[in-house]
Amino acid sequence: MLKITTLTIGDELLIGQVIDTNSAFMGRELNLHGMEVFRKLTVADTLPEIMDGLAAALATSDVVLMTGGLGPTKDDITKKALADFFGVEMVFSEVTWERIERFFARLGRPTSPAHREQCFMPANAELLTNKMGTAPGMWMAHEGKIVVSMPGVPYEMEYLLLQEVIPRLRERYALYPIAHRTFLTVGEGESRLATLIEDLEDQLPAHLKLAYLPNLGQVRLRLTGRADDEQQLQRDLQVYGDPLRDRLSPFVYGENNTSLEQVVGQLLLAQGLQLATAESCTGGYLAHRITAVPGASAYFKGSIVAYDNAVKEKLLGVQAGTLASQGAVSEATVREMVAGALAALEVDVAIAVSGIAGPGGGTPEKPVGTIWIAVGNRDHIQTLLLQGTKDRDKNIRYTATRALGLLWDFLRAV
Amino acid sequence: MLKITTLTIGDELLIGQVIDTNSAFMGRELNLHGMEVFRKLTVADTLPEIMDGLAAALATSDVVLMTGGLGPTKDDITKKALADFFGVEMVFSEVTWERIERFFARLGRPTSPAHREQCFMPANAELLTNKMGTAPGMWMAHEGKIVVSMPGVPYEMEYLLLQEVIPRLRERYALYPIAHRTFLTVGEGESRLATLIEDLEDQLPAHLKLAYLPNLGQVRLRLTGRADDEQQLQRDLQVYGDPLRDRLSPFVYGENNTSLEQVVGQLLLAQGLQLATAESCTGGYLAHRITAVPGASAYFKGSIVAYDNAVKEKLLGVQAGTLASQGAVSEATVREMVAGALAALEVDVAIAVSGIAGPGGGTPEKPVGTIWIAVGNRDHIQTLLLQGTKDRDKNIRYTATRALGLLWDFLRAV
Repeated sequence: MLKITTLTIGDELLIGQVIDTNSAFMGRELNLHGMEVFRKLTVADTLPEIMDGLAAALATSDVVLMTGGLGPTKDDITKKALADFFGVEMVFSEVTWERIERFFARLGRPTSPAHREQCFMPANAELLTNKMGTAPGMWMAHEGKIVVSMPGVPYEMEYLLLQEVIPRLRERYALYPIAHRTFLTVGEGESRLATLIEDLEDQLPAHLKLAYLPNLGQVRLRLTGRADDEQQLQRDLQVYGDPLRDRLSPFVYGENNTSLEQVVGQLLLAQGLQLATAESCTGGYLAHRITAVPGASAYFKGSIVAYDNAVKEKLLGVQAGTLASQGAVSEATVREMVAGALAALEVDVAIAVSGIAGPGGGTPEKPVGTIWIAVGNRDHIQTLLLQGTKDRDKNIRYTATRALGLLWDFLRAV
Repeated sequence: MLKITTLTIGDELLIGQVIDTNSAFMGRELNLHGMEVFRKLTVADTLPEIMDGLAAALATSDVVLMTGGLGPTKDDITKKALADFFGVEMVFSEVTWERIERFFARLGRPTSPAHREQCFMPANAELLTNKMGTAPGMWMAHEGKIVVSMPGVPYEMEYLLLQEVIPRLRERYALYPIAHRTFLTVGEGESRLATLIEDLEDQLPAHLKLAYLPNLGQVRLRLTGRADDEQQLQRDLQVYGDPLRDRLSPFVYGENNTSLEQVVGQLLLAQGLQLATAESCTGGYLAHRITAVPGASAYFKGSIVAYDNAVKEKLLGVQAGTLASQGAVSEATVREMVAGALAALEVDVAIAVSGIAGPGGGTPEKPVGTIWIAVGNRDHIQTLLLQGTKDRDKNIRYTATRALGLLWDFLRAV
């Protein structure tokens, strides 16, 4: 197995001011592309620490992927460390300078001496074009091993890793093709899903693996294949993946890279429907999830956050008698909230949520985590009772996800 | 300087399924207590990898803080690695077994053979009582160095680090007392704040340092002192900190561990006022921030998320003429939204927000990131114009923070 170490550089990582999401991203993407990170190392941004860290990483690995310590503010300390480590000169990169000049010319701003300084690179570095910024990536071969240096700015690192580094690593180490198909589900737990597809999972050939990735009301099922014939692999993902998707179809809202709020938005757009929410315990978080999608204004008209019962009555027309007899957290209340939102916000479809997020407010009959959801139009309303946890923040997030799931279910049936 | 390496253990960290927040927490807390992490290392949860990682960490540091690989699911692999590494036996801990028995007796559940297995510990380990779980921490001295092993569950690790490990390290290495005072500000950027207090910062004695920690509309200013006399240190933080706080008083909403939404909630409670929001571009996120605080129902009645102009007119009473002549993103509109929210939600104070979050919707006169905020009661309304960035998510978060800041300002003046 190819041994890869990530070497992330920066004092801000060591004192915990910044959480190291770069190494997590590298681990995830390498894993998706058939490689694995063997160790992660983080060091301070000083010349001796970078050199010591690189020596330690190279001693135990075939490939070292470095991020950080590039760019004018850090005095390009990583490049100096690399030149010293490999015992090479720094040479001026005309290509990089021209890119920086063009970049600043477009902005109508002058370049500074620091930008020329930025163009000096270790002589053994093959430069990787960074379309997201001014500092290029560097690819260096050394005694049969590979050292790569990338900027620490996440979107620049992500671009270089995906577009330049991973394809080169896959080619250099002649790795087997790897491919994935991820089914995105909502509304059922991991163990129930596993039971539903037990026989299909048992029939998977050895080169296909299924992983369950659960997260607060959603489970992603990732089918991964490795084989030497890429076309055969794509066919296998269809042949073995389609029955899994069919069996789980009540729960699969999409595949690969999309989100429940995006899928729901596309359904609303396609059906020409306007949506609103009426929220109690989620306190606006459900509307926030919906409006976090760019362009949501095309199908989302608004929300009434009725945190207080007086607002439920006045703006959503919930009956005082319902609140008195059934309570604010009840099926009857969320049904009336849907009807009220349809009328008040003049929309086609509405979601309503009422529950006890906690930590206070629970009773023996309705403990913390009791949540009612309703989704409906003028003809028909669907409801759902959830039992969450004792954790306020998790209850809010879980409720929003399950409410979007119920809306998805409703829109499919329309 | 004491050299500390964190050694976090787990395949889930290497494949990026879990982001390593444990090492960030350790770095932050050690730094706050006058120590610094020198390197961070992450390895797989196999016996040879843990042993190799520990050897590498010990070779370059005085102290190694390990997390993960404890507990029945991981086969207690860390403990086996430690016993092998130090060449000691595993011995049964009667004290740990009794704690586990009491714990399960309270839950009314039986213990399993795996729980007895969990009580075998490396013979050289001094056990650190873990009040948050069943697996104790382990403190091991080795050739003048210290190795500590803690569970990977964040709240268990955090408890052990703060209650057991940091006090022991401070005592063993006879570290100078260290103390902090953090001023929490909103509404002004880092460079402007620095200019305002330049003379006071210049006068700080050598044992006091000021750090600026900015985050989307908020800046924390942390004054840190080191001295051998703890009482003198506390006095110094007052003598030199109070003038800083006074000078920055228009922006300082609190000290140390609190949040803007909590401070605002306490002011509303103390003044017996009810709050509502009227939101366009924040799409419910502002209401979510307010209701994320437990007990918010005592002072928050609700929100009207008027994403569509029709909702601004119908539910908030914004004049069609205002929308036509000034546009939805204008001072006149947010003023009318405040008045409308006060009336519709029957509250004492309201916040209104309207802006262009992006990425679409910008014009030459009102580019993406143009945001108007208003806060007011029936007598008086304050407004604020912001220029955010091109990033939708950041604009939403920044707007919510500045809106809470404007509310805080308003409530102080009431």
